[in-house]
Amino acid sequence: MRILVVNPNSTASMTARIGAAARTVAAPGTEIVATNPPGGPASIEGYYDEALAVPGMLAEIERQQRDGVLAGTVIACFDDVGLDAARSLATAPVVGICEAAMQTAGLLGGRFSVVTTLARSVPALERLAQHYGMAGRCTIRAAGVPVLALEDPASGAVERVRAEIRRAVEQDGAETIVLGCAGMADLARNLSDEMGLPVVDGVTAAVKLVEGLAALGLRTSKVGGYAPPLPKAR
Amino acid sequence: MRILVVNPNSTASMTARIGAAARTVAAPGTEIVATNPPGGPASIEGYYDEALAVPGMLAEIERQQRDGVLAGTVIACFDDVGLDAARSLATAPVVGICEAAMQTAGLLGGRFSVVTTLARSVPALERLAQHYGMAGRCTIRAAGVPVLALEDPASGAVERVRAEIRRAVEQDGAETIVLGCAGMADLARNLSDEMGLPVVDGVTAAVKLVEGLAALGLRTSKVGGYAPPLPKAR
Amino acid sequence: MRILVVNPNSTASMTARIGAAARTVAAPGTEIVATNPPGGPASIEGYYDEALAVPGMLAEIERQQRDGVLAGTVIACFDDVGLDAARSLATAPVVGICEAAMQTAGLLGGRFSVVTTLARSVPALERLAQHYGMAGRCTIRAAGVPVLALEDPASGAVERVRAEIRRAVEQDGAETIVLGCAGMADLARNLSDEMGLPVVDGVTAAVKLVEGLAALGLRTSKVGGYAPPLPKAR
Amino acid sequence: MRILVVNPNSTASMTARIGAAARTVAAPGTEIVATNPPGGPASIEGYYDEALAVPGMLAEIERQQRDGVLAGTVIACFDDVGLDAARSLATAPVVGICEAAMQTAGLLGGRFSVVTTLARSVPALERLAQHYGMAGRCTIRAAGVPVLALEDPASGAVERVRAEIRRAVEQDGAETIVLGCAGMADLARNLSDEMGLPVVDGVTAAVKLVEGLAALGLRTSKVGGYAPPLPKAR
Amino acid sequence: MRILVVNPNSTASMTARIGAAARTVAAPGTEIVATNPPGGPASIEGYYDEALAVPGMLAEIERQQRDGVLAGTVIACFDDVGLDAARSLATAPVVGICEAAMQTAGLLGGRFSVVTTLARSVPALERLAQHYGMAGRCTIRAAGVPVLALEDPASGAVERVRAEIRRAVEQDGAETIVLGCAGMADLARNLSDEMGLPVVDGVTAAVKLVEGLAALGLRTSKVGGYAPPLPKAR
Amino acid sequence: MRILVVNPNSTASMTARIGAAARTVAAPGTEIVATNPPGGPASIEGYYDEALAVPGMLAEIERQQRDGVLAGTVIACFDDVGLDAARSLATAPVVGICEAAMQTAGLLGGRFSVVTTLARSVPALERLAQHYGMAGRCTIRAAGVPVLALEDPASGAVERVRAEIRRAVEQDGAETIVLGCAGMADLARNLSDEMGLPVVDGVTAAVKLVEGLAALGLRTSKVGGYAPPLPKAR
Repeated sequence: MRILVVNPNSTASMTARIGAAARTVAAPGTEIVATNPPGGPASIEGYYDEALAVPGMLAEIERQQRDGVLAGTVIACFDDVGLDAARSLATAPVVGICEAAMQTAGLLGGRFSVVTTLARSVPALERLAQHYGMAGRCTIRAAGVPVLALEDPASGAVERVRAEIRRAVEQDGAETIVLGCAGMADLARNLSDEMGLPVVDGVTAAVKLVEGLAALGLRTSKVGGYAPPLPKAR
Repeated sequence: MRILVVNPNSTASMTARIGAAARTVAAPGTEIVATNPPGGPASIEGYYDEALAVPGMLAEIERQQRDGVLAGTVIACFDDVGLDAARSLATAPVVGICEAAMQTAGLLGGRFSVVTTLARSVPALERLAQHYGMAGRCTIRAAGVPVLALEDPASGAVERVRAEIRRAVEQDGAETIVLGCAGMADLARNLSDEMGLPVVDGVTAAVKLVEGLAALGLRTSKVGGYAPPLPKAR
Repeated sequence: MRILVVNPNSTASMTARIGAAARTVAAPGTEIVATNPPGGPASIEGYYDEALAVPGMLAEIERQQRDGVLAGTVIACFDDVGLDAARSLATAPVVGICEAAMQTAGLLGGRFSVVTTLARSVPALERLAQHYGMAGRCTIRAAGVPVLALEDPASGAVERVRAEIRRAVEQDGAETIVLGCAGMADLARNLSDEMGLPVVDGVTAAVKLVEGLAALGLRTSKVGGYAPPLPKAR
Repeated sequence: MRILVVNPNSTASMTARIGAAARTVAAPGTEIVATNPPGGPASIEGYYDEALAVPGMLAEIERQQRDGVLAGTVIACFDDVGLDAARSLATAPVVGICEAAMQTAGLLGGRFSVVTTLARSVPALERLAQHYGMAGRCTIRAAGVPVLALEDPASGAVERVRAEIRRAVEQDGAETIVLGCAGMADLARNLSDEMGLPVVDGVTAAVKLVEGLAALGLRTSKVGGYAPPLPKAR
Repeated sequence: MRILVVNPNSTASMTARIGAAARTVAAPGTEIVATNPPGGPASIEGYYDEALAVPGMLAEIERQQRDGVLAGTVIACFDDVGLDAARSLATAPVVGICEAAMQTAGLLGGRFSVVTTLARSVPALERLAQHYGMAGRCTIRAAGVPVLALEDPASGAVERVRAEIRRAVEQDGAETIVLGCAGMADLARNLSDEMGLPVVDGVTAAVKLVEGLAALGLRTSKVGGYAPPLPKAR
Repeated sequence: MRILVVNPNSTASMTARIGAAARTVAAPGTEIVATNPPGGPASIEGYYDEALAVPGMLAEIERQQRDGVLAGTVIACFDDVGLDAARSLATAPVVGICEAAMQTAGLLGGRFSVVTTLARSVPALERLAQHYGMAGRCTIRAAGVPVLALEDPASGAVERVRAEIRRAVEQDGAETIVLGCAGMADLARNLSDEMGLPVVDGVTAAVKLVEGLAALGLRTSKVGGYAPPLPKAR
């Protein structure tokens, strides 16, 4: 089965790390196609970047879908950028990494905290938590780390994430931690071991959910809000 | 004061009708600049159309903002398309017509019902109602009318809207009606008179809210989720 | 247009300040009639004062309504005292200043905090926030200032309000501040400038909402909970 | 122990029936003092009547409290009229009959429906249900019966209540019924037997709650919103 | 009237203290039958203990019900262990002590805090608070006291509870305190006096609620989720 | 990897069908161990059956865990019977089929409806929906089918389920259907094809979630409510 993992920003090094993380959990027989739009924002830090990134990402999904059968798509940005539009467009399932990570955390414990990058992203994630029914059991925190600092080992970003996780455990009563950026995908396993509680990354969680939906033969419902786009001038 | 009323779809006749409706309520001294992006979807009927319309709309806001001081912007699509991105981008207030209409309905009675165009738009509006804190007091209904049918007097669209309003009063206990599409902006006053209860249109409601914010000297807060976009490759 | 701004307490100096604040934002052609009942509580600090103030306030609204056409009424007490009864009684729209300020804050940012006078008023305001659908995005705080201390420049009240605003920004993640007492109406603009984020006063916000409703030709719905009082012995 | 049952409307025949119902459940040793203010609305049908009834009711509570030790007070109007003000004023517990009936229904089954008098009262009761945390499990219905029709056996009021109960069972999945008016206090027991499910009346439920609080030695907390009124001109 | 107070754990000394507390508030003519299952967990500290305690508790209720008419049953464990099953099984009302205490606190003030034993019990109580509609107004805290330490005056348990109550008042804005363990039943009255705000114990509160339901002639509704168990192999 | 699928009732033919359904979706290399406790209720239809089934189910999980490494456990009863206790006890992840099906439906569309067996189970499932954050987007319906009728092809049970699905689509606006009983596990795929929208079964969905958690190296958090049982007499 072929799963598209689309990074909606245009930073190829981040796409490569995301793809590598996805492959660490993919089942034998699952091919991970990691991609990003050729242009658009270099990172997604706020609503404006989100809005500009979506059309390129949708074009990329459309192109990949035309090129061969997809078992499903993972949108590898924690804001679940363009998720609804992608569900309308795609014939196979689409899973966002915020949604995937929050669902997975929901299976592992009670309260959880999300550690994301910049404070400006917190309101968007609080809104997603409300939409996914998780607002009553999660807290959103920012580590004060720009997205692309995660690409730079010398930035001290990981240490900031670690410190914020500690605060979440002490102050929020978090039983589980969710890493709130696709660029943190490779940190989850080590942090789980180190911290002694589950640390969930959305990219890897979403890959397993897409594999699961494919095995179950389930696809996005097309009888409501995700009906295919109507033909019209665009 | 100059208020930008931006129709995010590319149908100029609809922009003209929206602008005309806006001018019927504008205060003396308010100039309404009604515009739409030069391209993009001809109408917004679902998440995919929304996503494709936003970048053109943001460019239009940016261009108008560069061309002269704006007192504020009204986004004239009931899905509040790109509202958060526009708030990050703009220096003056931005108001969505769904938000404006729901707030206004909240001042006039208890339960209200929204009558929108197509069933596929209902889930997006239910989510907005939840986000605006109105989910407990409103019902979303579709009249089964394509957006552009509202441009065609022979389409029977108005009669369908009227019938759906009647069902809302009988079945939902609606005390107030909200018209759920910018293309219905010119219907509100007549329907109010005819139905004997307030019928709210979001375009005109939003114009008055923007005028109000300008008079109060209030602008979008830039210390949280609506911080200005960071400089980066886009 | 004539707008009644009714201070439900009987302190005329406070009414004068409220009226003056209202006039700073009123449109040309809007006449502000600021009034208070001849008797009743000198200030409204808790549920008991609220209850005793309402009949006098309703009588005042009735009297003013008889004396000439009102475009609408603003109830200038942050507890939205008697708002529902006034809506039943009045033929024109009625807006409460808590409702107006919370709606206005909702247009300007995500989370906001209300800074009110005494701790005893916090539970009533938390209930209003829940009723207006804002409980998930606002925090209510008290500055520990009796209402009438706001009438006395030497009381240190303003400095306490300022300190509480700082705590709201640091501890609540507030993007916007709402001043939670009609007696603070004249502080908003300076505090906005000083604090670098929007500070909303309900009196001025409500005046603009009433002007807006009047321009839109919208009145309270009379088909539900705000039906006119039935004729009976009272 | 002496329990004050105060009917906030001025219809003495209704007070007498309420007092009689209260006495059917009072424990040996409990004296029921049923009273109403000397003036004010003859019945409470909407927010305006509520507002006008409260000061007289508070004066009555104050007078009775001065005249002798009260174990507690029941406010015998289903809108829980003036409940918060009465709690601030009284030194002993105060229980509203809506609150009492909803709590009692919560002990007896899952979903319940309230059958009240007129449609205009539904919004106020929906708000109370939200405030008491019961909105997710109850439905409010009106039988279309004016309050004082309940005083008149020839009015057909009881048959209308019965029909509305049947609709609640069929359409709402109600496991329990709450009678939504103090004037229905004497109907509960017969309707329970007839309908085969619990039918709860708030007057009798509240009497038992007040007796319980007295036995437990519990009084209204005075450290928050129910702090005693501050000394001031009123 | 005979009320069964069943302690679902098997510690007889705790049952004796619970029974004694129940008797301090029982009306003349109420007989308290305090009992516990002959085996099962010695204390209930977490979901696993809950699950193992329930069948023995249900057998005990069944046995007592067979032995003589019960006016109702109190389940004396703050997790409301097996409450729904007991309601299905029993013919008379069943009240849980968490439910009883939260309802009672709801009559006495606004926000309240629960002080329970161990941190591991907090998530279960947060879920109960959500189910009872109290999540918006209560905070759950643990004093770090094992259940059976409450049986040992030398354990320092009471001092820890006292310290946690102080934190609840300072940090949560609690107007009322709920003691979150049946083993604390005898502490409530002294702590109320000492702390100057109502401290509610669930055992005694539940006894009064059961007495009340019996006086009202109300029993569990059997038309929905609490229908009697179907005949089948078990 | 070895996954335990435990049917908490004692009907071996149902266990066999559940196991067979689980195997249709299991990945190569996944061994499904389908089991049920040796005794206890033959079917789970209400809270009483739930309570009696749990200890046997927990003993079965403990025995299987002792006999060999488990990758995780699926609790194959739609009431998520004993899920919290099992999570405390087990070292590997535990997933309930209600939780799994609701999460999966959440990935496929907006509103969904659950079609369960008997009306008496509806309240328990409504409570689970609330706990999982899905109450705002799902409706629970009963087909009026006893659990064991699903074992009998001549019972007409499947036709009743089909009819209830049709009502859900027409009346609830369901975009996705969830089958609300482990005994319906083998119906999902055919009903999806027939109805033209996704029909989700919890058993198969849960198997994929457990496989996913195992691949991700994630286990139940033990730092909060799911801490291991304390040593004590049981």
